Amino acid sequence: MKKLISIVLAVGALGLAVPASAQFAKPEDAIKYRQAALTLLGNHFGHLGGMAQGRIPFDAAAASLDADVVALASKLPWHAFGPGTDTGRPNAAKPEVWKEQAKFKELSDKMQAEVTKVAAAAKTGNLDNLKGAFGPAAQSCKACHDDFRKR
Amino acid sequence: MKKLISIVLAVGALGLAVPASAQFAKPEDAIKYRQAALTLLGNHFGHLGGMAQGRIPFDAAAASLDADVVALASKLPWHAFGPGTDTGRPNAAKPEVWKEQAKFKELSDKMQAEVTKVAAAAKTGNLDNLKGAFGPAAQSCKACHDDFRKR
Repeated sequence: MKKLISIVLAVGALGLAVPASAQFAKPEDAIKYRQAALTLLGNHFGHLGGMAQGRIPFDAAAASLDADVVALASKLPWHAFGPGTDTGRPNAAKPEVWKEQAKFKELSDKMQAEVTKVAAAAKTGNLDNLKGAFGPAAQSCKACHDDFRKR
Repeated sequence: MKKLISIVLAVGALGLAVPASAQFAKPEDAIKYRQAALTLLGNHFGHLGGMAQGRIPFDAAAASLDADVVALASKLPWHAFGPGTDTGRPNAAKPEVWKEQAKFKELSDKMQAEVTKVAAAAKTGNLDNLKGAFGPAAQSCKACHDDFRKR
């Protein structure tokens, strides 16, 4: 029991909000979460792009880490676009995210599929594989941003 | 060549800034990146904590995803605490991050080691394993926050 209390106190001190029934206590938390996932995705996808385009020397170990982040982060944001999460923290989601949910899902699924191919290509350690997969994935990011992101 | 131009245009349209020599074009980007990694880490670690403490029903599949995020996200923030990244975007890092680098590294290494144990425990699908690993990891987060985080 002493150990349990110590854990509860430690978690309280960390400021972790863990509601029992949903992953996000308030819309602000959902927005912050999805922005975090997309920030990591954009950073590591961009890093792979730099290598695909020859602006950064190809580094197989860095590419492998990029691939891990891209594959995982691309799965995460979607459940954080729930009803009522359009406001609560500044964000760039257009109202269309909630008005055209089928299209949003279609484009986000497409993006996930394409960046997962990029991750697999990056894992091969072969730059030509990465070059081949990168373009279609970048286009799939852009297609979703064009319709569903304000800036 | 046409394909390469198309990739370059697509990446430009995504607003991805990929400097050739460093991962972050400006301090703001580094701060945003490390905050993103720590946001995902905190969310998924907190979710595991909810299960460890019985406030959320144990769900092996959710715990496995939490474990993947925790293991990966805990590796990411540290290179984004480089010199000059104390300002450029609101953030909670104390000046001690840059003044006491050896201690910061020691506590962040300890945290990484502990949360990696939590991730491994969560992957076993056994709630008792998760309960056993969670407390020390939560303490390791708190120890670093106490000394190096403003709030």
